[in-house]
Amino acid sequence: MAQNYLFTNLLGSFVFDGQFNLIDSINFNTLDDYSNSAKHEQKLAATHKPKLTTQQLLEKPNSKILQQILPYFKDKTNFSHFYSQNMAMTAYLIKQAVNEDDFIIQAINNVEEIDKVANTLAKRLREWYELYNPEFSRSIESHEMFVELILSKTKQELLKEIKHDENLLGADLKKQDIEPMLNLARSIRELYSLKQKHTDYLENLMDTYCKNIKEIAGALIGAKLLEHAKSLRHLAVLPASTIQILGAEKALFRHIKTNSRPPKYGVLISHPFISRAKQKDRGKIARALANKLALAAKVDYYKGEFIGDKLRAEIEKKFS
Amino acid sequence: MAQNYLFTNLLGSFVFDGQFNLIDSINFNTLDDYSNSAKHEQKLAATHKPKLTTQQLLEKPNSKILQQILPYFKDKTNFSHFYSQNMAMTAYLIKQAVNEDDFIIQAINNVEEIDKVANTLAKRLREWYELYNPEFSRSIESHEMFVELILSKTKQELLKEIKHDENLLGADLKKQDIEPMLNLARSIRELYSLKQKHTDYLENLMDTYCKNIKEIAGALIGAKLLEHAKSLRHLAVLPASTIQILGAEKALFRHIKTNSRPPKYGVLISHPFISRAKQKDRGKIARALANKLALAAKVDYYKGEFIGDKLRAEIEKKFS
Repeated sequence: MAQNYLFTNLLGSFVFDGQFNLIDSINFNTLDDYSNSAKHEQKLAATHKPKLTTQQLLEKPNSKILQQILPYFKDKTNFSHFYSQNMAMTAYLIKQAVNEDDFIIQAINNVEEIDKVANTLAKRLREWYELYNPEFSRSIESHEMFVELILSKTKQELLKEIKHDENLLGADLKKQDIEPMLNLARSIRELYSLKQKHTDYLENLMDTYCKNIKEIAGALIGAKLLEHAKSLRHLAVLPASTIQILGAEKALFRHIKTNSRPPKYGVLISHPFISRAKQKDRGKIARALANKLALAAKVDYYKGEFIGDKLRAEIEKKFS
Repeated sequence: MAQNYLFTNLLGSFVFDGQFNLIDSINFNTLDDYSNSAKHEQKLAATHKPKLTTQQLLEKPNSKILQQILPYFKDKTNFSHFYSQNMAMTAYLIKQAVNEDDFIIQAINNVEEIDKVANTLAKRLREWYELYNPEFSRSIESHEMFVELILSKTKQELLKEIKHDENLLGADLKKQDIEPMLNLARSIRELYSLKQKHTDYLENLMDTYCKNIKEIAGALIGAKLLEHAKSLRHLAVLPASTIQILGAEKALFRHIKTNSRPPKYGVLISHPFISRAKQKDRGKIARALANKLALAAKVDYYKGEFIGDKLRAEIEKKFS
């Protein structure tokens, strides 16, 4: 009983006879052909089935038969075709693997990195400026405000202010020092404004893809939760108790190893509900937030309705 | 024998009689008065000496007499005056303590910090962009070049390039993602240009205050040597062997503790004479550079002639 075999791979659909000789084929030139392989197989079957006797079949090869067929593809002419189809397949899969949550994670990384960088340079500016006028720098706590105040002064004012009367501490500022100082201050201001733009971009992404999480946790904290969970898909399956302490991994492992007190919250610590609450209530509120966030993440992942406002209201009601 | 005493402190010059009663004084209102105290003392002496008998003297009090005089200043009315004069004195001393080399150290810190920050953000941009087009990012090694190439493209080009044909790896870039990405790239370009400006500023400072060091080591390495030595004054008294390994403190302590091989150079490692030399010659060249730099630092500190070009030529001749 001579079987015929129908076999499909990235290169095409092939018909082999009982002696494993190729008798027909359709070559695939693009990945699209491969994804439509069922259609091509039907076409081959339609051509060849009528030619067979009633005792012959057109079958898919089992693994034993496959060993007889595969040597055909060892031909060198197939190699470059196989290589290019394989690359295209890999590229396609990688592209599929990049999701919206990857962009959100990039965006929160951007915001955090820009913030860190702006603060580093602001500290640099302060240290430099303190040579001339230590009191002024120390009287202003916010970096952003400090930079704005420096920039709000004209060069003349700066020169005059810093050409001290002798009751002010610090050295004299020379004219040539002012422009570099103002340049640095301007760049820092630019960075703070860049941070704002990227925060807006993040808010947009969260509005589009995670609006329930955003409503409860805010864009920044929500994105940080995603970052710690690695993906929205993963966040959606995490238990609330894990979400509650995402970002407190160090404290958690310390707890496990040394039996110190377990962490009550990680990323959630900067949530306004928690930061404005009394110390003794914070654990409870963190638990409530994590419960609602676990639900919100599932709804966002399965692209459900917007229920974030209701969930948020429930927490507010419970703890007000 | 009733002595009279002439005593001067921050508050003024005072004449006391033998019973330690104040009989005359000149109050100091500014630090200038204090720095001219000799003149004021002469004036008081000129008034009072003629009034004294031949057996009386107008003397500076010794420490035993001083104990009798000082209670006079415990008066509360003197306190605020003393406080303000003291503050002025401190401010003056602090101002004197800030030298040109402090500005140079600030400037090199600026350049290094800005460089670090720009590279951090460039890495951030790469990581983000690699989601869309990993091959492109990896094909360009220099951060600065990468940023320029991103910015040289129009939005349309970027969109088209990144809306892949399926043979390119990476996800599709959406229109809304482009502007934030370009914003980040623009900020990084700004930071690289800021770094250039601060490098120029540093070059100017070095030209003015350390032109011999600059001629031999270059502005960046020269400033780093100053930074490690804490001041030009200190650098000028360091032996050449210490200058040679400034910046390799870790390796030096490791050598002392574990008897590992001593470091051959620290900051000097990036000097072109050393980096372009063969491994076996580097130690010798570092020693020669350090010798000339020790001399250059002394000349710069004592504001001597410009001999940097000769010193540099001597090293070049020796090792060419």
